[in-house]
Amino acid sequence: MTEPLRIGVAGLGTVGAAVVRLLGRHAASLEARCGRPLVVTAVSARDRKRDRGVDLSGCEWFDDPVALAASPLCDVVVELVGGDEGPARATVETALAAGKHVVTANKALLAKHGAALAATAEAKGVGLFFEASVAGGIPIVKTLREALAGNAVSRISGILNGTCNYILSRMELEGLTFEACLADAQRLGYAEADPTFDVGGFDAAHKLALLTSLAFGTEIDADAIHVEGIASIAPLDLKMADELGFRIKLLGVAERTATGIEQRVHPTMVPKTSAIAQVMGVTNAVSIHADAVGELTLVGPGAGGDATASSVLSDLADLGRGVRIAPFGLPVAALAKAERAPMQRHEGGYYVRLSVLDRPGAAASIATRMAERAISLESIVQRRAPGTPWEATGRAAGPVPVVLLTYATTEAAIRAALDAVMADGHIAEPPQLIRIERP
Amino acid sequence: MTEPLRIGVAGLGTVGAAVVRLLGRHAASLEARCGRPLVVTAVSARDRKRDRGVDLSGCEWFDDPVALAASPLCDVVVELVGGDEGPARATVETALAAGKHVVTANKALLAKHGAALAATAEAKGVGLFFEASVAGGIPIVKTLREALAGNAVSRISGILNGTCNYILSRMELEGLTFEACLADAQRLGYAEADPTFDVGGFDAAHKLALLTSLAFGTEIDADAIHVEGIASIAPLDLKMADELGFRIKLLGVAERTATGIEQRVHPTMVPKTSAIAQVMGVTNAVSIHADAVGELTLVGPGAGGDATASSVLSDLADLGRGVRIAPFGLPVAALAKAERAPMQRHEGGYYVRLSVLDRPGAAASIATRMAERAISLESIVQRRAPGTPWEATGRAAGPVPVVLLTYATTEAAIRAALDAVMADGHIAEPPQLIRIERP
Repeated sequence: MTEPLRIGVAGLGTVGAAVVRLLGRHAASLEARCGRPLVVTAVSARDRKRDRGVDLSGCEWFDDPVALAASPLCDVVVELVGGDEGPARATVETALAAGKHVVTANKALLAKHGAALAATAEAKGVGLFFEASVAGGIPIVKTLREALAGNAVSRISGILNGTCNYILSRMELEGLTFEACLADAQRLGYAEADPTFDVGGFDAAHKLALLTSLAFGTEIDADAIHVEGIASIAPLDLKMADELGFRIKLLGVAERTATGIEQRVHPTMVPKTSAIAQVMGVTNAVSIHADAVGELTLVGPGAGGDATASSVLSDLADLGRGVRIAPFGLPVAALAKAERAPMQRHEGGYYVRLSVLDRPGAAASIATRMAERAISLESIVQRRAPGTPWEATGRAAGPVPVVLLTYATTEAAIRAALDAVMADGHIAEPPQLIRIERP
Repeated sequence: MTEPLRIGVAGLGTVGAAVVRLLGRHAASLEARCGRPLVVTAVSARDRKRDRGVDLSGCEWFDDPVALAASPLCDVVVELVGGDEGPARATVETALAAGKHVVTANKALLAKHGAALAATAEAKGVGLFFEASVAGGIPIVKTLREALAGNAVSRISGILNGTCNYILSRMELEGLTFEACLADAQRLGYAEADPTFDVGGFDAAHKLALLTSLAFGTEIDADAIHVEGIASIAPLDLKMADELGFRIKLLGVAERTATGIEQRVHPTMVPKTSAIAQVMGVTNAVSIHADAVGELTLVGPGAGGDATASSVLSDLADLGRGVRIAPFGLPVAALAKAERAPMQRHEGGYYVRLSVLDRPGAAASIATRMAERAISLESIVQRRAPGTPWEATGRAAGPVPVVLLTYATTEAAIRAALDAVMADGHIAEPPQLIRIERP
């Protein structure tokens, strides 16, 4: 193993350039660790002229990443092209078919085609590593795949999207609207021009799909994930959360329940004193509950060129040392078909914010409809909104926010109760519903 | 690789029994992950009759762990005997000499003999794995050795002793004395009958010595560690810390400074809002600063049979999959000789609590002596202790606590200033000095 490990980097954006830079900076240490040099021999990107601040003079340049993947110049292809089809998919498929290892940061591709790609890698006897695809620099893939090999995981939950956490943190700390914080996130480069993928929860869902497979030894089932984004979160929700002792985080949660594996991504109320509530800004965090280790939490940067490149280099060093492991820990054939736990059977507490028309019968309607579904209320907060105009009767002219915290109930029960409250006609707009987790 | 990996477990205490139990419970999953069964073939412990709640019927029993280590019945020896010499050392040396892999939880042995043992393992081409020896179930060894292979670490710090963190947490939350909390920790089995090893900081120091080597690629140098325990922490210190926005934690810290690598274990003031301050009870936490990943924090159980066994099984699964890696990430010959940063050159802020005799000149002495060493004060708190008797002059009859927070200075400067204050004769007892970290 003294022959160099020859690396082709497909995609020279922030992460790709950082991979090349760090491989150069830490070349001596990596060679000592792996017993062989790790050398970038080929790169691919659209614009040859752009200054990326790295020396590419020794590398063969490919305009087409698929041509790089097919080239005999490299043993490993680092796929940083992005996208769940097109050139990214073709690059990875071509590399694996040619018997090359693949290291990728592409969660979308793996959430969609991970099983097929892993099967190809297995058949070819090569590695398909993807530490960089989930939670940036946090070594969560290695932790689940290797460190927790002697555990049965019961639950994994995390802050998996830095953009959403940044927006929610600023909304809370500065009392700003979602729209204002999103605009800032876009200006700072934390959010794309089309932010749907991040703020709609889809990016977190792709990551959760991979974590679920790693944690439970099951086939990837991204379609099973219940996904809600953060666009509906109002400053009032953050204010009420604060008063009630909570923070709002976009969590991805996968857990083994009596009815199967529940996978969900949604805004979540977490106690302010919990470890996960301390994670602010673009930082990510993942907590695992498992039978042997109990609870383990990893906190670190969820994005950024260098942090993501740190994970790519972890995979490259493993390959350099000759590590061979099934991409999802278990051989594809041994991955179990997961029973999907229906979201309607989800059990937990709920935060409900209602826009109540301030007239006789409203409170009775809410109380009755909840009682009919055996839902117990932990807290009820009703306050006149400042500046609300008043009618001659002393009642508020417009709707008044009423916030309820329920004890544990089911998704089906709370949905049915709120539908009934809506049908009673006391509510001005659809209710805001945020699930409570007490990790 | 379909032949079973045959495991000998030397030491059947809480951790040893948990290892056997978990290997049984997760046998099918481990076999699928490793491509071969992981089977316990031999065990060693003093008392054959004790019911450990695990089935040992298929195992050969050895009264002497060294005989187990020499036996052809096993490919891996799990050393859980404990102690830095005697049977533990002989067991590990015998196993390695016989060409067997070793998995150990023995930080004391490795802190003292790690380099020699690693060199033997290397020469024999076998593994020497020790995930369980630092921070219980937290995969910090794997993270430093593998996940951060593409990083230069600048600093590692952590809560590495659950007993101390339990005692400090209870002292803070319940206003109790060190002695009362220690007695409780002993009753609950968190502390040994002779607690010196834990509360004196020596256990944390052994762990820090291993982390330093892994993080910086340096030879183990446990003797270089500046060690202070928690026995001197008074309830008043915790109260003052709280008022000033801090918590007190026993931290192990290793960092690269201008004068070399500084290694220290001591009670530390950390801001209440920091992630490390949230870690209460017997939980451990380790934070790493490195050039690529930035900051990464791992939080989890620092002790307990199952949690520690989780780490042992991580190592066994790696061995089962054929992973070979130098014990400290780099071959022994490539480990650098660390330049020791002298503690006198340590730079940082300090909390100082003085027992001041309430008479003219005391304040002037303190202010002058600090100024002479160019030490700036961030805060000064002086209060009459409740219940202090008064002299006819209106002064306190006994000494009065005065607390200072300094801005960054050096260990040499603050020590010299306090020696001068002592010499001035205004101080009733040696000052309490706690370093401040703002992680």
